[in-house]
Amino acid sequence: MTEHPDLPRLQRRLAEFAAARNWGPYHTPKNLASALSVEAAELVEIFQWLTPRESAQVMDDPATAHRVRDEVADVLAYLLQFCEVLGVDPLTALAEKIDRNERRFPRPGEGTDAG
Amino acid sequence: MTEHPDLPRLQRRLAEFAAARNWGPYHTPKNLASALSVEAAELVEIFQWLTPRESAQVMDDPATAHRVRDEVADVLAYLLQFCEVLGVDPLTALAEKIDRNERRFPRPGEGTDAG
Amino acid sequence: MTEHPDLPRLQRRLAEFAAARNWGPYHTPKNLASALSVEAAELVEIFQWLTPRESAQVMDDPATAHRVRDEVADVLAYLLQFCEVLGVDPLTALAEKIDRNERRFPRPGEGTDAG
Amino acid sequence: MTEHPDLPRLQRRLAEFAAARNWGPYHTPKNLASALSVEAAELVEIFQWLTPRESAQVMDDPATAHRVRDEVADVLAYLLQFCEVLGVDPLTALAEKIDRNERRFPRPGEGTDAG
Repeated sequence: MTEHPDLPRLQRRLAEFAAARNWGPYHTPKNLASALSVEAAELVEIFQWLTPRESAQVMDDPATAHRVRDEVADVLAYLLQFCEVLGVDPLTALAEKIDRNERRFPRPGEGTDAG
Repeated sequence: MTEHPDLPRLQRRLAEFAAARNWGPYHTPKNLASALSVEAAELVEIFQWLTPRESAQVMDDPATAHRVRDEVADVLAYLLQFCEVLGVDPLTALAEKIDRNERRFPRPGEGTDAG
Repeated sequence: MTEHPDLPRLQRRLAEFAAARNWGPYHTPKNLASALSVEAAELVEIFQWLTPRESAQVMDDPATAHRVRDEVADVLAYLLQFCEVLGVDPLTALAEKIDRNERRFPRPGEGTDAG
Repeated sequence: MTEHPDLPRLQRRLAEFAAARNWGPYHTPKNLASALSVEAAELVEIFQWLTPRESAQVMDDPATAHRVRDEVADVLAYLLQFCEVLGVDPLTALAEKIDRNERRFPRPGEGTDAG
C-alpha cells in the first residue's frame, strides 16, 4: 500500500467483499452486532488471566502481538459492516459523543461556566 | 465541525481527554478490552429479542437510532483507546486483514491461481 | 455416575480442582467474570449466522450438539467458580430473582392485588 | 422458602414463567444465547475498572453485593432457559466436562497412568 488506509475506504472494501460473496442475507444488523461481540470477547480472552502489568506487555511477544492486531481488525471490520447496513457514520457518531462527554466531564480545574 | 473527522484525530482527542482526567492507571489494555466487550454487549442488547427483519428497521425509531449511534461511538472509542495504549494502528491492522481474507476467500468464479 | 449430580457438589468439585492446581491467584472475581463472558460468547458464536429456525435445530447435528453442551458446561463452571470466590449462592440468588419477577410481571389475567 | 431450591425446580419455574407470558416465540436458542452474553457483560461491567484486589472486596458494599447477586441470577436464568429449549441437561454437561478435565489436567504429582 502506498498510502495510509482511511476508514471510509476500508468500509467500502468490506462492503464489496461481502457483496461479491453474497453474504448479504447473513449480514443483518442483529447478526453483525453478535459477531462484533464475539470478536470483542476473543480480544478479552487474550487478557483474561493476565495481571494488569502483564497485560501492558502483550506486544513484546510477536505471536501475541499478531493475535492482538488480528482481533482488533475483526472488531473494526464487524463494526464497519454493522454501520454499513444501518447507514451509521461511525466517525461522526464518535465525534459527537466526544463533544457530549467534554461537556459532561469538564477537565479538572475547568469551570463548567467556561466549558 | 467544518470537516469530516478522521480516525487518527479522534484517537488523539480521546487520548487527551483521558490524560486530562488522569485515567491512565485505569486504562490498562486488559480493562479497555473488557470495556470494549461490555459496550459491544450493549449494542447486542438492542437487538436481542428482535427478528432479523425488525433488526433491519431500528433506525426508523429516533430514540433507538440515537441509542445505536451512541453504542457504536462507545465501541469505537474503547477500540481506539485500546489501540492507543498498545501502539496498534487499527487501520493498518484491518487493511492487512482484508488483504489476507481476499487471498483466503477468492471471489466466486475467480481461480485461486489468479488471486 | 450412579446418581444425578447436584449443583453444590459440582461447585465443590470445581473448587477442589482449582485448588489442587494452585489456580487461586488467577481466580479473582474480575478474571472469572471475564472468563464467563468469553465462554458465553463462544456459545453465541455457534448461532451467530443462523436463522431463528436453524438455531432451534442445532442439536440434530452430533458435533454441534457436543459443542453446545461443552460451552454450556464452561459457562456454568465459571459461574460456579465466580460464586465460590465471592460466597454467592447462585440457587438462592435465582430463587429470589424469580420471586421478584413474579411480583413485577404478573401473569396476564392476574390482578396485581392478587399477586 | 422452607427448603433450599434445586436447579431442576428453578428451571421448571422459569419455563412456567415464560409460558404464562407467551414468551416462547422470543425464546429461540439464538436469542437466549445472546441474552446470556449480555447478562455476563453486565457482570463484567461491575469489575471493569477495579484492580484485582478491589474486585475481591465487592461484596463488602451492600449495593454492589445486591447487583452481583442480581447479575448472577440473570446469567443462570438465561442459561437454564437456553438449556430448556434445547433439551440440554446443564448438570450432566458440567459433570462430564469435569470428568474430561480431570483426565486432561492431572493433579501435580499424579501420574497420568494413575489418572
